Amino acid sequence: MSIAVVGASTEVGSVGNDVVKNLVEQKFSGAIFPVNPKTNELYSIRCYPNLAAIEGDVECAVIVVPAKIVPQVLREAVLKKVKAAIVISAGFGEAGNADLETEIAEIARAGDVALLGPNCLGVVNPHRSMNASFARTLPKKGNVAFLSQSGALGTAVLDMMGGFGIGLSKFVSLGNKAMLDESALLEYFARDKKTKVIAIYAEDLRNPDRIKKAAKEMATAKKSKPIIILKSGKTAAGAAALASHTGSLAGNDASYEALFEEAGIMRAETSEELFLLARAFSLSPLPAGRNLAIVTNAGGPGVLSADVAIGAGLGLSPLSDATASELRAFLPSAASVKNPIDILGDAKSDRYARALDLVLADPSVHMVLAVLTPQSMTDVETIAEKISESVEKSGKPVVAVFMGGKLVAGGLKMLLKKKIAVANFPEDGIRMLAALADFAESREKEVVMKYSYKTLPAPEKNDIERAKEIFQVVKSSGRNLLSPIETLDLFVAYGFPIPKYAKATTSEEAARAARDIAGPCVIKILSNDITHKSDAGGILLNVAPERAGEAFERVLERVKLSAPEARIDGALLMEMAPKGGIELIAGSFRDPNLGQTVMLGSGGIYVEILKDAAFGLSPVARSRAETMLAKLRIFPLLNGARGGAKYDIDAVVECVGRLSQLLTDFPDIRELDVNPLIVYPDTPEGGGVLIVDGRVVVN
Amino acid sequence: MSIAVVGASTEVGSVGNDVVKNLVEQKFSGAIFPVNPKTNELYSIRCYPNLAAIEGDVECAVIVVPAKIVPQVLREAVLKKVKAAIVISAGFGEAGNADLETEIAEIARAGDVALLGPNCLGVVNPHRSMNASFARTLPKKGNVAFLSQSGALGTAVLDMMGGFGIGLSKFVSLGNKAMLDESALLEYFARDKKTKVIAIYAEDLRNPDRIKKAAKEMATAKKSKPIIILKSGKTAAGAAALASHTGSLAGNDASYEALFEEAGIMRAETSEELFLLARAFSLSPLPAGRNLAIVTNAGGPGVLSADVAIGAGLGLSPLSDATASELRAFLPSAASVKNPIDILGDAKSDRYARALDLVLADPSVHMVLAVLTPQSMTDVETIAEKISESVEKSGKPVVAVFMGGKLVAGGLKMLLKKKIAVANFPEDGIRMLAALADFAESREKEVVMKYSYKTLPAPEKNDIERAKEIFQVVKSSGRNLLSPIETLDLFVAYGFPIPKYAKATTSEEAARAARDIAGPCVIKILSNDITHKSDAGGILLNVAPERAGEAFERVLERVKLSAPEARIDGALLMEMAPKGGIELIAGSFRDPNLGQTVMLGSGGIYVEILKDAAFGLSPVARSRAETMLAKLRIFPLLNGARGGAKYDIDAVVECVGRLSQLLTDFPDIRELDVNPLIVYPDTPEGGGVLIVDGRVVVN
Repeated sequence: MSIAVVGASTEVGSVGNDVVKNLVEQKFSGAIFPVNPKTNELYSIRCYPNLAAIEGDVECAVIVVPAKIVPQVLREAVLKKVKAAIVISAGFGEAGNADLETEIAEIARAGDVALLGPNCLGVVNPHRSMNASFARTLPKKGNVAFLSQSGALGTAVLDMMGGFGIGLSKFVSLGNKAMLDESALLEYFARDKKTKVIAIYAEDLRNPDRIKKAAKEMATAKKSKPIIILKSGKTAAGAAALASHTGSLAGNDASYEALFEEAGIMRAETSEELFLLARAFSLSPLPAGRNLAIVTNAGGPGVLSADVAIGAGLGLSPLSDATASELRAFLPSAASVKNPIDILGDAKSDRYARALDLVLADPSVHMVLAVLTPQSMTDVETIAEKISESVEKSGKPVVAVFMGGKLVAGGLKMLLKKKIAVANFPEDGIRMLAALADFAESREKEVVMKYSYKTLPAPEKNDIERAKEIFQVVKSSGRNLLSPIETLDLFVAYGFPIPKYAKATTSEEAARAARDIAGPCVIKILSNDITHKSDAGGILLNVAPERAGEAFERVLERVKLSAPEARIDGALLMEMAPKGGIELIAGSFRDPNLGQTVMLGSGGIYVEILKDAAFGLSPVARSRAETMLAKLRIFPLLNGARGGAKYDIDAVVECVGRLSQLLTDFPDIRELDVNPLIVYPDTPEGGGVLIVDGRVVVN
Repeated sequence: MSIAVVGASTEVGSVGNDVVKNLVEQKFSGAIFPVNPKTNELYSIRCYPNLAAIEGDVECAVIVVPAKIVPQVLREAVLKKVKAAIVISAGFGEAGNADLETEIAEIARAGDVALLGPNCLGVVNPHRSMNASFARTLPKKGNVAFLSQSGALGTAVLDMMGGFGIGLSKFVSLGNKAMLDESALLEYFARDKKTKVIAIYAEDLRNPDRIKKAAKEMATAKKSKPIIILKSGKTAAGAAALASHTGSLAGNDASYEALFEEAGIMRAETSEELFLLARAFSLSPLPAGRNLAIVTNAGGPGVLSADVAIGAGLGLSPLSDATASELRAFLPSAASVKNPIDILGDAKSDRYARALDLVLADPSVHMVLAVLTPQSMTDVETIAEKISESVEKSGKPVVAVFMGGKLVAGGLKMLLKKKIAVANFPEDGIRMLAALADFAESREKEVVMKYSYKTLPAPEKNDIERAKEIFQVVKSSGRNLLSPIETLDLFVAYGFPIPKYAKATTSEEAARAARDIAGPCVIKILSNDITHKSDAGGILLNVAPERAGEAFERVLERVKLSAPEARIDGALLMEMAPKGGIELIAGSFRDPNLGQTVMLGSGGIYVEILKDAAFGLSPVARSRAETMLAKLRIFPLLNGARGGAKYDIDAVVECVGRLSQLLTDFPDIRELDVNPLIVYPDTPEGGGVLIVDGRVVVN
């Protein structure tokens, strides 16, 4: 491995000097070629005037020259057949120079150079003692790959890792991501043998399909690699702060949540959690189930742990009778052999070891939280040693929670040295174990990536031509919004179930339409000038067919009174939807990075109270649509809770599929609402869904 | 101050030895009298055969003798006029010896001795170098009082405090709380001048009224003292673990939540949060409002902080124009003077100081989060010093978040030395500032402790005599459950609005009752033998008055067919409640420690989906009932959201008051349900609430 540093500087404290200094002083195991035409030597190493002047091959060029010169240096790198370029230099997209950034990406692509950055901190590979960055710290060797979109956060991360007992396989600062982004690096780390866990700090993500594919493959591989992500910009204010500081688009957090769920990526809620989970996955095996045993020398922390464990969905089942009686045989009578197992404050290392071995040997126990508080007789470091021996024997995940300060510091250090996952607080320990269990469980689940719906007609059966016509008319008339009739026509073309409807411009047409509908109907005025049609008297409900003509006249008159200037394009007549359904809503919006995002939620009067919605990235597979529906708070009601009716869930899932298909066929759709989507009880006579209104906006 | 240690032991490593050793070696500033009849000297201090043999006064006796001997020692303490006794000895209630525990409490009460424990770790007072416990650590002096119900957790806490930069005023291990409990100690700490913050680990609490009073007084005092509590036993499993390890009753967490809200006690969600909040309140002043400014040298953590701040309800408003332009004048052009204020990675101490001074001087800024990541040019310790100077000048709360490991350790140490609140992660810093703001805001709120309802008749106007009669009948017939008619009669006696109703045993009576009701009614069979009356055909809705007699016969026939063995006591006829209302539920249950707890929640079909309920301890003041209602997710709907009808909120609040009054007058009520409680739109013609069913269980 050989690295050239183009822009190697003699000025101590400058970035171009720091990079060379870090490589040299931290003893990079490969060749270092500083490039600086103004000097012959830097840190006792020969300097070269340019890349071409270097005799041997250069695998990687670290570029630290001013932004304007970067294209020239990259061209030289291409000629030198450099494989990878790390552009640390700033002054590109983040400073308003998007064209310059595009230029360097194009040079790299054309020249087959993998380009990292620009505007990044660099790359660190502890296994080769390679610190090709301007951060001071060379972290310990380990199995965690850390990717950071924020360089400044990266320096903190590098400095923090050691204290957390986390060794790194690689550290990569992504910078502006002109070419290489998270998706490319995930593909790299999938193959990287030194990497067991991937931890990411991200502000935006692109290429969702590539990310999903890489993540899923890593999760389901025999030696699975979990991905943990800390994604900022959750709130609107956070997103605004993001936009102001990097110019990147944070996008909608719902789309990111959907991506993470679909890809099996774990989301850290806080920056500390990112480290805690990285530590857990770095040091622990995965559990074979969700059953937890808590072994503690203090009741209080045991109770706190039990509380949090239940909240995290872990099982706290009692131990087997055999284990309980073996424990009972040697523990003092005041000890509790229930779960949490309280081995009492005077427990020393021998009692810890015996109890832990017994508990870990119980087949019903999948993982253990070992809690210690430092009592006067507690031999903390010997206990730490015994715990590590028990863990090694059992092969089950154990997190050791040593609560305290100076009295437990030695024990914690010892445990980390023995590669045992530790925590300072019981809640953190439980969070770590729960994440292990969640990941183990999620990777067992069947991964349905293909797109199929039970009753959805094959795409060619949808009337794509009719849909194309509709969009053509909208575009040629210079509009973005489809009219109500166009919207319904589009839905019909894609096989959505809609009540019978027709447009009428005269009372005769209205009477005829109502006769065709042959049942009570709604009359709704059609006008682009009137937003609130109900307020303007433009809607009549429950009109009998024989009175439709007269009702049509009445609606027109009312609207003319309240909005005399408005242009009226006639009225829509639609069959009344039957009662007895539950209202849902479905829709889509486009995230700037992740693309079409499908929403399914509770509708009707409770929509704003429940704030009950689930999201998926389009295309939405059937299994994903089912998951989305099952995630809704209203789902138990649809599923026949409390002995009530079971609603036609399949029909809802099918509708989501149709919606997703429509978005796939017409990427120009910017926003789409299906509201309400009424679902009916799934009886032999009926069931199904009905859509009575919607809204479609195109670019 | 003088302390006797009764049970002082010569055996190194024993509790009776540890206590003397801690007092002597950690240089307690008062007199120490070891009591041990078998030796003359311990740690070079004279030993006494018993308390009576000590010449001078003994203010405090630490008792470490076997449980059986404790009563005798306590009697001697009474004779010696000892003011306080700390019973460290175990073997009382927790070991099944409840009588022995009662005995020592009675001796202490009769002899006017304040008794702490038994089964506790002891008491530590760093301001007097007094470690009257068997924990090894004498913590630093400070202003935080720490109370722990778990002794073992206490040793961890004592060991941990230093690392968190928290100094203690007192540490008290409560043990079994035979006499002194949290309420008594809160009253003590309200007067204790060394104490500014009270941190508590609790497994159960008693005396809610005393706790509420003490907490409210401390919160609203000129020098307010916040209380932060970590309460375990949140989940059923946690409560079970608690019961198995201390024999204490965890009670219902909803009652505890209500207590904490009503008392203005802050609840820590995790053990780490308990320390973080204690640190914040120990070191920081309270903010004058909720506006936060974030000053950072790294964009990423700035965005993360903004996310969490918005989530915590803090304001992130832009700075004033004046501040923004002053910042702009000296910051590099790439810096952001929006909020978060990004002073860039190359910021050194001078830039931090100028930016921080300007931001803190902005009157729109109430508090600041100062974030640092260690870049190569970052002069961490000088920045720490500058921050502490800026904070001192401004008097506003600032939390300094230094992210990293070794590179920032010196800075964090420096900040803690200067009594500046610090955090390792931005999310923790925001949580600390949000808690300061929450507490500052809550103490400004008017405290309504008195019990008054606008339209509630004075208690003597309620028909207490009628209610007494009803309960008398229930008791004398050996029942716990009131019959439907008794329940309605009870509600009427307490002025709850109920539709007209009557009992009928014959068709003639039914016809007469329906004529009196004079509108469509419900007929519901009365039978103790039939639980599901609807399934048995025992309910008829919407019966016209003229058909009531015939309908009565029909219901009786149907029920006799489906349940021929059941004894039928006639039927209840009730006027149909009008449509157009929203269903709520109200009720009560009795927490074993905190007493009657009132519930108000969403009713109807969505009850289980919304899980929408709020709780208050009885008696519920009007302001509290209003808060409970406003906390419901359904509240916006009741309050006329989306331009809808406004419902009669006052009538609901009044009902809660009547319910609370009923519980106060009849403490024997074990469970009470008012379901449904229908509230109607608040129109000039109508409004109000109606209760159509309920359930009352007495002890």
